[in-house]
Amino acid sequence: MDYNEIALKKHRELKGKISTELKDTLDTKDQLSIYYSPGVGAVSSHLAKHPEDTRDYTWTGNTVAVISDGSAVLGLGNIGPEAALPVMEGKCMLFKHFAGINAIPIVLNVHTADEIVATIKALSPTIGAINLEDIAAPLCFEVEDRLKAELSIPIFHDDQHGTAVVALAGLINAMKVTGKDLGSCRIVVNGVGAAGVAIIKLIKLYSPEAIIIGLDSKGIISGNRTDLNASKSMLLTQDLIASDVNGVLEDSLINADIFIGVSQANLLEAKHIESMSKDPIIFGLANPIPEIMPDIAKSAGAKIVATGRSDFPNQVNNAVAFPGIFRGALDNGVRKITDNHKLAAARAIASLVENPTEDTIIPSVMDERLVPSIAKVIA
Amino acid sequence: MDYNEIALKKHRELKGKISTELKDTLDTKDQLSIYYSPGVGAVSSHLAKHPEDTRDYTWTGNTVAVISDGSAVLGLGNIGPEAALPVMEGKCMLFKHFAGINAIPIVLNVHTADEIVATIKALSPTIGAINLEDIAAPLCFEVEDRLKAELSIPIFHDDQHGTAVVALAGLINAMKVTGKDLGSCRIVVNGVGAAGVAIIKLIKLYSPEAIIIGLDSKGIISGNRTDLNASKSMLLTQDLIASDVNGVLEDSLINADIFIGVSQANLLEAKHIESMSKDPIIFGLANPIPEIMPDIAKSAGAKIVATGRSDFPNQVNNAVAFPGIFRGALDNGVRKITDNHKLAAARAIASLVENPTEDTIIPSVMDERLVPSIAKVIA
Repeated sequence: MDYNEIALKKHRELKGKISTELKDTLDTKDQLSIYYSPGVGAVSSHLAKHPEDTRDYTWTGNTVAVISDGSAVLGLGNIGPEAALPVMEGKCMLFKHFAGINAIPIVLNVHTADEIVATIKALSPTIGAINLEDIAAPLCFEVEDRLKAELSIPIFHDDQHGTAVVALAGLINAMKVTGKDLGSCRIVVNGVGAAGVAIIKLIKLYSPEAIIIGLDSKGIISGNRTDLNASKSMLLTQDLIASDVNGVLEDSLINADIFIGVSQANLLEAKHIESMSKDPIIFGLANPIPEIMPDIAKSAGAKIVATGRSDFPNQVNNAVAFPGIFRGALDNGVRKITDNHKLAAARAIASLVENPTEDTIIPSVMDERLVPSIAKVIA
Repeated sequence: MDYNEIALKKHRELKGKISTELKDTLDTKDQLSIYYSPGVGAVSSHLAKHPEDTRDYTWTGNTVAVISDGSAVLGLGNIGPEAALPVMEGKCMLFKHFAGINAIPIVLNVHTADEIVATIKALSPTIGAINLEDIAAPLCFEVEDRLKAELSIPIFHDDQHGTAVVALAGLINAMKVTGKDLGSCRIVVNGVGAAGVAIIKLIKLYSPEAIIIGLDSKGIISGNRTDLNASKSMLLTQDLIASDVNGVLEDSLINADIFIGVSQANLLEAKHIESMSKDPIIFGLANPIPEIMPDIAKSAGAKIVATGRSDFPNQVNNAVAFPGIFRGALDNGVRKITDNHKLAAARAIASLVENPTEDTIIPSVMDERLVPSIAKVIA
């Protein structure tokens, strides 16, 4: 199926993919008087005295905002707020479909951390939680850190943490299939933007002993590099990645157990896979074309291959994680989604695959056990 | 019916009155691929190249934001964003029910013009039009003026203009019933906040000859007053109100033809009505208790009495006007709602009452001809 053509057609036909609807009818004067003036005045008066009851009398308790400045949309880059809107609407569909959560897309035409933080703080009484989406690194790190410090509702940058949670879930099961131990693995993470940094952090939380080599487009990030931005330097100063390995991607892969790419299409060749240790694990998460196609990786000896795509086995798809994480946060009155929540979510996801195999390390996004299983551990 | 008690009960039961819903199902992998990744990428790519098509491919073309900082909510005053949210959700219900427009409530915890304007500008690519609601005067004037100057989507502060449009529609028909001519009338407007200022401006646009006396809580606004804020001084400098009348409310009413109150409960007594000219017209719009109860006004000689309430005849209810105004603005690609639009809307509303009587000068909010009739003239 040509998704591009049909997507254009369907979007144009529907003029957007979500709507707002009434929870009750408004056909009588009595209903108008109950839901609007004068009855609503009693509700507002009550909340003025008891703001802690807001979630019980308004939609905030089951509503998130999906917020982007359009600076890093899919593989398309900085295409701006208007062009980002279809992605945010799509994400809102997923929120409702998978988790029963109302979600409103909000796209911003401001692009500094100060402006984005100020805007989101200003509108924050409107909603119960915030899903940051498609904001470029390193801006996204500052925006998320400041919002988490300054607001008392859950803030979750899904490109970072959703990806990291699902990737870790996949790695947990990949260990079962290969008999490897993550703490003894040599792991190459190619791409240290939003997703790469979050993946590195979460792996090190789960397995502090794991040796991770991080790379950006210029090569291995090491103590010798003088061109690093704050988030890349942080990886070194916090000992999250090895600081004494130098070179380029090819060098990093020699004897590596795991490759995780959040970078670009077709960067890896068969010879790279062949240089890795026995039974290498390849997560080629670049979208829509992975760092190496699964058939090439497999022929070169890869034991397990995961991608971001639904048409290959082992899809690392954020939609496996975020609906359950938000469902749990809203239902349990969680004010911050912590590292422990992310680890627990990854374990919960991994445990749903009862007998992991090379081609089944991650549950399908359609698995109905996902949301309740994850929500239970976000408490 | 005790609306307060049942409103509290229903709001708590429903946990909010609106929801977001999907326009299509999301049950198959194909649908996920069409509405989310990878298909949505084609839509975003298209919009990056053709931002002018955003309304054809996203929900913005049929979506408004109902935005308040909670500084002047109903008769409750400055109760803050959380307590304002039920009112905004209610307004969103009205948008969908009466005009088929998606509406999202946005409450802000910032309260200066600079901050409110910056926030709304930042999120403006999200929506097709903005309904400002329950923002205190004079702040609301600056916020609206600046947004209208700086954004190219319709901005409409309903407390001002919705009220003014419906009040003018009522006056147009009141003239038919009484045989008076608005241009020859002496009109008292008590209360020069958001609604009062807008009513004065719109009457003077319709009938530049009308003599209007404006009052605030300290009495008649005149050239002798030294305590006027910018918006009250503007009424004098722009010759919208008489500058040479002094005194208090009682003085203003002598020989007046029309009283319009957007002030407080029970300010008027029978003796005030008796001091007015023959067949006086009384619009007591304070909510929920008008400036004088209709039966008292009628007994004292009032020919026509209008209120803001649904349980008396002649309800001046914003919901008569705003659904059609926004429907027309969105359908016709209107970028600014102008004075001419407001006049045309008032005329369209008035014309729906074929044979105006003392008790029927304004159509019911339930009149299904309202939205199409108004929308047609907003072009």
